[in-house]
Amino acid sequence: MKCKVTFLPENRSTEVRKGTDLLQAAREIGIEILSNCGGQGTCGSCKVKVLKGNPGASPSPHLSKKEIAEGWIQACLVLVEEDLEILVPKEHRIAKPAKISTGLKTAARIEIGKWDITPSIKRVKLKLPSPTIDNNISDLTRLFQGLDHEGYPSEKLWCGLDIISRLTKTLRKKNWEVTVLILESEHGFEIVDIQPGDTTCNRLGLAIDIGTTSVVVYLVDLLTGHIIGTESDYNKQISCGTDIISRIIYTERKNGLTVMQKLIIETINNLINKLLVKHKIHRRNIDCVSCGGNTTMMHLFLKIDPNNIRFDPYIPTFTTTPLLSAKEVGIKTGAHTSLYCVPGVSSYIGGDITGGILASGMTKDNKLTLFLDVGTNGEIVLGNSEWLVSASCSAGPAFEGAGIKYGMRATNGAIDQVKIDRKTFEPTVTVTGHEKPIGICGSGTIDTIAEMYLAGIITQKGKFNKELKTQRVREGKYGWEYVLVWKNESGIDNDITITEPDVDNILRAKGAIYAGCSLLLKEMGYKAKDLDRFLIAGGFGHYLNIEKAIIIGMLPDIDPEKYQYLGNTSVIGAYLTLLSRKMQEEVTQIAKNVTYRELSVSNDFMNEYMASLFLPHTNIELFPTVQEILKEIKHL
Amino acid sequence: MKCKVTFLPENRSTEVRKGTDLLQAAREIGIEILSNCGGQGTCGSCKVKVLKGNPGASPSPHLSKKEIAEGWIQACLVLVEEDLEILVPKEHRIAKPAKISTGLKTAARIEIGKWDITPSIKRVKLKLPSPTIDNNISDLTRLFQGLDHEGYPSEKLWCGLDIISRLTKTLRKKNWEVTVLILESEHGFEIVDIQPGDTTCNRLGLAIDIGTTSVVVYLVDLLTGHIIGTESDYNKQISCGTDIISRIIYTERKNGLTVMQKLIIETINNLINKLLVKHKIHRRNIDCVSCGGNTTMMHLFLKIDPNNIRFDPYIPTFTTTPLLSAKEVGIKTGAHTSLYCVPGVSSYIGGDITGGILASGMTKDNKLTLFLDVGTNGEIVLGNSEWLVSASCSAGPAFEGAGIKYGMRATNGAIDQVKIDRKTFEPTVTVTGHEKPIGICGSGTIDTIAEMYLAGIITQKGKFNKELKTQRVREGKYGWEYVLVWKNESGIDNDITITEPDVDNILRAKGAIYAGCSLLLKEMGYKAKDLDRFLIAGGFGHYLNIEKAIIIGMLPDIDPEKYQYLGNTSVIGAYLTLLSRKMQEEVTQIAKNVTYRELSVSNDFMNEYMASLFLPHTNIELFPTVQEILKEIKHL
Repeated sequence: MKCKVTFLPENRSTEVRKGTDLLQAAREIGIEILSNCGGQGTCGSCKVKVLKGNPGASPSPHLSKKEIAEGWIQACLVLVEEDLEILVPKEHRIAKPAKISTGLKTAARIEIGKWDITPSIKRVKLKLPSPTIDNNISDLTRLFQGLDHEGYPSEKLWCGLDIISRLTKTLRKKNWEVTVLILESEHGFEIVDIQPGDTTCNRLGLAIDIGTTSVVVYLVDLLTGHIIGTESDYNKQISCGTDIISRIIYTERKNGLTVMQKLIIETINNLINKLLVKHKIHRRNIDCVSCGGNTTMMHLFLKIDPNNIRFDPYIPTFTTTPLLSAKEVGIKTGAHTSLYCVPGVSSYIGGDITGGILASGMTKDNKLTLFLDVGTNGEIVLGNSEWLVSASCSAGPAFEGAGIKYGMRATNGAIDQVKIDRKTFEPTVTVTGHEKPIGICGSGTIDTIAEMYLAGIITQKGKFNKELKTQRVREGKYGWEYVLVWKNESGIDNDITITEPDVDNILRAKGAIYAGCSLLLKEMGYKAKDLDRFLIAGGFGHYLNIEKAIIIGMLPDIDPEKYQYLGNTSVIGAYLTLLSRKMQEEVTQIAKNVTYRELSVSNDFMNEYMASLFLPHTNIELFPTVQEILKEIKHL
Repeated sequence: MKCKVTFLPENRSTEVRKGTDLLQAAREIGIEILSNCGGQGTCGSCKVKVLKGNPGASPSPHLSKKEIAEGWIQACLVLVEEDLEILVPKEHRIAKPAKISTGLKTAARIEIGKWDITPSIKRVKLKLPSPTIDNNISDLTRLFQGLDHEGYPSEKLWCGLDIISRLTKTLRKKNWEVTVLILESEHGFEIVDIQPGDTTCNRLGLAIDIGTTSVVVYLVDLLTGHIIGTESDYNKQISCGTDIISRIIYTERKNGLTVMQKLIIETINNLINKLLVKHKIHRRNIDCVSCGGNTTMMHLFLKIDPNNIRFDPYIPTFTTTPLLSAKEVGIKTGAHTSLYCVPGVSSYIGGDITGGILASGMTKDNKLTLFLDVGTNGEIVLGNSEWLVSASCSAGPAFEGAGIKYGMRATNGAIDQVKIDRKTFEPTVTVTGHEKPIGICGSGTIDTIAEMYLAGIITQKGKFNKELKTQRVREGKYGWEYVLVWKNESGIDNDITITEPDVDNILRAKGAIYAGCSLLLKEMGYKAKDLDRFLIAGGFGHYLNIEKAIIIGMLPDIDPEKYQYLGNTSVIGAYLTLLSRKMQEEVTQIAKNVTYRELSVSNDFMNEYMASLFLPHTNIELFPTVQEILKEIKHL
């Protein structure tokens, strides 16, 4: 039995089998409802309104009685049992990103001229002598002899049956002139394609960052190293959960892993298509692909069960893969295209981070450097040219809006900057895309909390000051809250507020990051002030106001000059390893050198973490600048 | 539009599209009509009789007016345009072989104990430590570490995505005990399978000879080298032509190459199935397959266009292949099973011959040895431990019955021995399977011609003595002929005769072989009497009467003690290379060392050949034994 579900305001309908959940029904026709927890029913982000039909009651702690009475439901908790008409409001949709960090600025600083470009696949042109009765060796032997003259000894060469099948015709097509594509590895030389004539000029590659939230692709000229174009989009897997853990949980469903791989491959292929069309390039000219991503994303990308990643002792199936074939994974490039995956360290320090270390150059000198990648997770690497230690903080996706009542990504309609008057407690906000605000993004949330703290709206412990004479501080359904935008000024049907649970969530997220940094420094015998550099990578870093992040105690209170924002270093790591086998060796060495510290089982970390659940910290002495600001405010 | 064709005496029917040729219609339902030329219309071997329906006239030089009047047609020349009923007589069917040479006797002489058994794939058992929070490397790294302890350094190891996909579950299935299957090559070590627990005892292999006429498979225990079982059958490609050239021509048809590969793969898979069922063995326990065959057969087996093989300068696509995957080619063994193809030398000296040289042991000492493989073609190798020269004689398949009016293979009903009374000219014949004779096989033909020559029925030039007082010598439709069996004593509806064209064909075939041997000897500065050994391999050799072969001048007149019959040395070559990578290296070296002499462009060969088109030779001095016999006969 099928039921018809119509989604508004698009007015698009789909017929689904009775019993399908509403989230799945929407996904099937491309209506992208937000689903931070991946349909587990725990986050409440998939709120939609029933306009026609009766979906049956389904209890949800995320819905008020009034909302239920108005027809609001959680899409993931409702199974379709009759025809329905559903309104999906803007703020509960997966928004297109305002900007995804492509790392191009940092990439532009790379001096390619300094090193040899040596991609995994080389193109070698041969002009072979035609056979005669006195020189009647087989076509394959003739090819191998030709390659031997070019420095590829026959005993190290091999090829698959497909090459042999095409060989005879290809050799004769342009009068014994051919271009041979050779995959170079430590094992020898594999012939991966053979093309008639001279095609040595057509050599392109793709560098890809597979982020939990977004995917970035560079199209690269492998002759010059030049980045010809770049495209980016959200990772389509977002419809199955915002964070890594909900994605892993999703794979436990029937066909869950298949769905997850399909979504990321679709995302990547769409971006590749855009680049190919825009730059008028044939798939067959893409020789190499290099991919960076966290360990879970790489498992999903290669369709490998990631479930052990989330259970003690957190064992991934792989952190390093051999060179693969792009076709085998489903990437639509050439049949010969190689796929290199940047090697990672552990379940929670992936190739995105080792690639980031490579891109950051922090291993080039002995300056004490802290590298922080704040994306959906927070990964920290401390070290220099001699040693590297790392940790991953389950900061959670609070900075990306998850777990924050009106949280959202940094897309149009997001409040991204906030200033609160110290006396009137009235806020001034700026909104991405200059639209009516519909929520608050990570940087806006940090701003708000820093400002609330400085204005005395919340205490050092993050608790609301209930004595303030302003309507903006009030007790709401989820406890005390601060009204940032009144309903009539907002783009939604509600006041936009920051609640006490929101503050708690941000404190936990920033506390985890700060504690992680502290612990690594402490264990290596350093203090924050010893740092020569504090490098920030990842999409979120772009929006981060360093000053505000110090005020809330997310980042250590050191000279702001030492902070440097690098953007998407994962894609730059992929780009570097795409261009050069030497860079592949370097990143392999980095992955081997990085010591991984599992924080979840460390008592020291727990102590650091508990001390960091304050604004800015239990020990205010660690934040002299903040102390200074607070003093100034009191003087006013 | 479809038409119904019914074949008798089976009374089996098939519906075919109008315009299908009758041979194809028969092939589709497994009625195996003989077709020496592969349906080109040139040989006349596919004669069948129309019982109902009108197939339309189609001129054929192979049919007499009487036969046409009786309804005889050539199946390959007739397109089905209406419903037909067709009688396929026994003598125009592909007969099941009476005996295929399996080389087991020669194989039994191999002393396996003398050398290490080192197949391409090794099985290594590992017991890995379980992961803990302090030992939380990835599953793949753990596996590589385990293998490193067993002498497989990580930098030389690699595996495909399929292994990584199955890794996590497999490791945990039997508590971290696994058996890893490693393909060893000069490039390093590839993990081709991973199985839970200890499966090191299950290691089997297959050695296969892919002959133009027949296929032989050994099932081999890779732990002991013991041959567990053997199966053989005709190569199903026979229905598309008897000799190599007609097979190659067949591939030019639409889908011809696909059909050809399918037929050989079917033949092989059927034999494998028989062995697996009989010995209760699972496909997954077959680790390695080793195949020997002539260059054309190997092209067809791997579905590689063989057409250049038949045109000057006779260039094959390959003579050597890298190690392949059995699955990729279509052989139904394990997904991991490796496929080794014995390397050949040229278009007309294939892996069957190099494998034969290896099996013969002729390169082990410095005795001057001539190795002759008489199958569908005749290949000659002369040499010793220091040098090897080779040639291929287009002897054609006359010894297998093609081109001989009543020629047939050595199956039941074939006249295989003949004696002719010197005075009465009456023959005494023996028949394979003690049935009524339906034709003459190769050895029978050689016998007959030798006897006819000794009895004075034919001259030294192979011409009939028309003065003899016997009804057995007469002028027939195709010139003069000798009646070997009268119609009433035969199993067919005709007298069984040897015609002057038959004699000419045999003279050409034997002449080519003798001339090839002579030329190679001469070019290396030897005479036949210098030979220490004359080794005969190949299916036909089994039936060959050396004495008679000397009388007709096919083999040189040397001490009969020097002749040795080895049987199917191709399968033994496959068997040796299956067991040992050292043997693979040896046969590669043999393939490199063999010099190939293209006879078709040699004037010297033409002179030798012209001189050999006599009984036994223009220069009778070369055949002192024959001279002696002739003298004795004259005395009587």
